[in-house]
Amino acid sequence: MTASSPIGPEIERLIQLLAKLPGLGPRSARRVALHLVKKKESLLTPLAAAMAAARDTIVTCQVCGNIDTADPCTLCRDPRRDPSVIVVVEDVADLWALERAGAVSARYHVLGGVLSALDGVGPEDLNVESLIDRTRADGVKEIIFAVNATVEGQTTAHYVSDQLAGLNVKISRLAHGVPVGGELDYLDEGTLAAAIRQRTAL
Amino acid sequence: MTASSPIGPEIERLIQLLAKLPGLGPRSARRVALHLVKKKESLLTPLAAAMAAARDTIVTCQVCGNIDTADPCTLCRDPRRDPSVIVVVEDVADLWALERAGAVSARYHVLGGVLSALDGVGPEDLNVESLIDRTRADGVKEIIFAVNATVEGQTTAHYVSDQLAGLNVKISRLAHGVPVGGELDYLDEGTLAAAIRQRTAL
Repeated sequence: MTASSPIGPEIERLIQLLAKLPGLGPRSARRVALHLVKKKESLLTPLAAAMAAARDTIVTCQVCGNIDTADPCTLCRDPRRDPSVIVVVEDVADLWALERAGAVSARYHVLGGVLSALDGVGPEDLNVESLIDRTRADGVKEIIFAVNATVEGQTTAHYVSDQLAGLNVKISRLAHGVPVGGELDYLDEGTLAAAIRQRTAL
Repeated sequence: MTASSPIGPEIERLIQLLAKLPGLGPRSARRVALHLVKKKESLLTPLAAAMAAARDTIVTCQVCGNIDTADPCTLCRDPRRDPSVIVVVEDVADLWALERAGAVSARYHVLGGVLSALDGVGPEDLNVESLIDRTRADGVKEIIFAVNATVEGQTTAHYVSDQLAGLNVKISRLAHGVPVGGELDYLDEGTLAAAIRQRTAL
């Protein structure tokens, strides 16, 4: 908007902040702001309250890096989970994805990113030290690297597993292969080759 | 998330509300929620405050339907704007777009939608009565329909202009033609035919 903008500073500021959200640009931020103002009772008011509640209650778990209203988080305190297995993920979103899948009932460790020379992310920016401490202290038997199958993800997994060498734990990673429901014709050669290499008995 | 969700109710509720915003689905809402929690100081806190401020201060202008912190709005009270011309738009977003372009220095009237049998939007759902009252009362000389060049937009413009018949105002609409910077090869036949029909002297 120009200096002689007809939009008041309140809505201008709302738009500017909304435009900082991932996936939203200036145009979609204006659309969201208008939608919010139109749905003041049904959406703007409860969303403002939900954000205030999140701001006041959500903390990062000092053990695993998950976010929750408790520290240690619900997952770290759940006695039904196997404490001898730690699933290492890049981000809380990956933890959520594994939980939605019900893939594993173990503990987690959120690295908080991946090594990336381009983005200036070094080992000191990731929660590696605390993983080593946990592995050493907790009678942990296995570390599963559930990181993205990208160059950065795999590099990070190799770096962290090197740091864990000599700690007497089994180190594993997710299987490569054909996604369930996937069609071979649409898959890349690397995935197909891995799926053949790691074939299982029928 | 399942019933045994590891995500606390606060963040669950935040995600559910974010997923109601236009352009956001469940997956992008989770991404936005995580981003907000990670940027608690720099984004979540100011955004929660901006939403609360918007909730408390933004009102709909009873004259033109614009949204602002004042009623009548800044545009309706601006003495530099020509009060004899009213630009009719479907939505506040269209008003903002015209203001960004600096296209016209007149008054506005926001219809609040378009006629749509499919969506159950009839004339009584639009701000038509107040436009007729304004046209009658204010010494208005011209009504410019700045509505979308869609079937619904054009139908609505025709309907509303019929209601204004006999009020002794000039009624106009936006020109059709080639967008500035547009390439002819990518334009549809209707636009090209209109651009030829409404050609101007070089």
